[in-house]
Amino acid sequence: MKSVRDLDSPAVTVDLDIMEDNIRRLQAQTDSLGIANRPHIKTHKIPALGKLQMQAGAVGITCQKLGEVEVFAEAGVADDVLLTFNILGWTKTERLMALSRRLKRLAVVFDNEVVARGLSEAAKRAGVEVPFLVECDTGFGRNGVQTPEAAFDLARLAMRLPNLRFDGIMTFPNKEPTAAFFNRALELFRGAGIEVPVVSGGGTPATLTLGDFPMLTEHRAGTYLYNDAMMVHSRAATWAQCAMRVRATVVSRPTDTRAIVDAGTKVLTSDQYYVQGFGHVTEYPQAAVSGLSEEHGTLDLSRCAERPQVGDIVHIVPNHCCVVSNMVDTVYGVRGGRIEAAWKVAARGLVT
Amino acid sequence: MKSVRDLDSPAVTVDLDIMEDNIRRLQAQTDSLGIANRPHIKTHKIPALGKLQMQAGAVGITCQKLGEVEVFAEAGVADDVLLTFNILGWTKTERLMALSRRLKRLAVVFDNEVVARGLSEAAKRAGVEVPFLVECDTGFGRNGVQTPEAAFDLARLAMRLPNLRFDGIMTFPNKEPTAAFFNRALELFRGAGIEVPVVSGGGTPATLTLGDFPMLTEHRAGTYLYNDAMMVHSRAATWAQCAMRVRATVVSRPTDTRAIVDAGTKVLTSDQYYVQGFGHVTEYPQAAVSGLSEEHGTLDLSRCAERPQVGDIVHIVPNHCCVVSNMVDTVYGVRGGRIEAAWKVAARGLVT
Repeated sequence: MKSVRDLDSPAVTVDLDIMEDNIRRLQAQTDSLGIANRPHIKTHKIPALGKLQMQAGAVGITCQKLGEVEVFAEAGVADDVLLTFNILGWTKTERLMALSRRLKRLAVVFDNEVVARGLSEAAKRAGVEVPFLVECDTGFGRNGVQTPEAAFDLARLAMRLPNLRFDGIMTFPNKEPTAAFFNRALELFRGAGIEVPVVSGGGTPATLTLGDFPMLTEHRAGTYLYNDAMMVHSRAATWAQCAMRVRATVVSRPTDTRAIVDAGTKVLTSDQYYVQGFGHVTEYPQAAVSGLSEEHGTLDLSRCAERPQVGDIVHIVPNHCCVVSNMVDTVYGVRGGRIEAAWKVAARGLVT
Repeated sequence: MKSVRDLDSPAVTVDLDIMEDNIRRLQAQTDSLGIANRPHIKTHKIPALGKLQMQAGAVGITCQKLGEVEVFAEAGVADDVLLTFNILGWTKTERLMALSRRLKRLAVVFDNEVVARGLSEAAKRAGVEVPFLVECDTGFGRNGVQTPEAAFDLARLAMRLPNLRFDGIMTFPNKEPTAAFFNRALELFRGAGIEVPVVSGGGTPATLTLGDFPMLTEHRAGTYLYNDAMMVHSRAATWAQCAMRVRATVVSRPTDTRAIVDAGTKVLTSDQYYVQGFGHVTEYPQAAVSGLSEEHGTLDLSRCAERPQVGDIVHIVPNHCCVVSNMVDTVYGVRGGRIEAAWKVAARGLVT
């Protein structure tokens, strides 16, 4: 199979020229700001793409799940990994220790004492030292300690536990309150004579304002690699910078204004967040992807002068590229209509 | 591994007592109405569960994708299969013909002439006869011909094409306008002396009103096997009849009213439809699953008197069980706290 036309639909494709340009652009930005680029591989889950990011100058990678670390360690993508999820329970901490022995640096995050104590006990049993960052909620309202003082207190508590090493603080994503939160936290650590080697921010939309956060030593972006409708709506990318497209076939034209394609939530997912509809049809930008079932996508063609027929192929930029990666076993790298790569999504579906 | 406590989280479990009761109940209902039960296996994608449905009295199964038919044919689940999706293009029609040769009856649906002609040509090449139902849009606004007259015309056109055999009409889901649509269509066919062997309805919520559609000869329900928050909200099930639960761990308690669990959209998906929130926490029914990221679930505990701590296990009934099946490689069958089965979701992720 050489031509993209030979792909059965639905299929997930990535425009290689666009993706390579996205990799170069973010690396140039972090280089110019003098901060480390630590891309989040949950966006692609493909070791070969992690290697491209490393070759472009990334200092290491970010993973969200132990399974992702295992796959990327096995593939030899990076020896410096940050795992940005509270790791809890015997099964998971044992897996973590096996990885800690294998990688040059595997840093973890936590936002509470229960997780810190579990990690310390596992690290002590394993005889390894685990570097940690304290996760801070700087306005997103998900994980993280709520105040700079709480970050300082948790760090001090964990520094007294065996086999843990304080490596810094982190947040997701960088938001307006992040600067004040981090500056106050750094003041507390400085006042206690504690060095903070790493101050880690995250998010692709946050690359728009990266220069406003001079306290950051590293940034973790994921989506920038492919980009998607959410990034366009947040002005972090243009449609021309969106590399991932779902190739779909029009299988029905029940009415003059409605088309049904063979890509539903099983490929595009239901993710919407702040975006209207469920994707952007590149051939018919006036079409709305107005609804999805598992295997059906409904296009509202009311505003389209030209309209597709049954059998026509369309390409849809998804709302959220990271979740689309998780829906398929294979992603195709395409350049000028030719398939250059068929990547196995090696870390797909690794929920633990 | 014998106890459900040994499962690492997140994990998808099914209460076997509840599931078996769900299977029995729908079969008893269709039996009492004298219509065929043709369960849609997209809900579970597990051949062993299809066999349970067949043993309970199902006449055959419904699939949505060729890949599902292939997996279920290979497993010998049923020799009478209905594939309810327009099949288009050389690759797919060739796969369909291979399956047609293998199964006793593989019926297809279509709602347009392009698909009908493609199927006819493939069937002629293969030397097989393909039974078809005309898909009718009886109020859902997705696939389907728009009027009874259009159903009649398409059926007549397709009956004149080589190697296709008219087997009836179908819709998804049964809605209030379905009865009038089908009655008028049947009148047209009767007037032309054309027998309509199959009149096929669909949907689990539609089982509430199945008796109001006496023209149906068969019904296709899927979700009823597990049930989910959508079924509870549509009054097609109670929480006690929901067999699928996502087992998750509380990994963070950032504030007094917020808990973070390790199940996000990668297990629960973003599917909401008409349901508020993203699932129902069985241990804390007052908790709202107020937000999901890929790996994080946010619980709003404001209305909970009792609140979980970090490390606690919770079980979440998902909004939509069918899509959860597609997110994991394994589903665990549980009875009284013991794991009786670890089923591979053999037809997971088969987008073509």
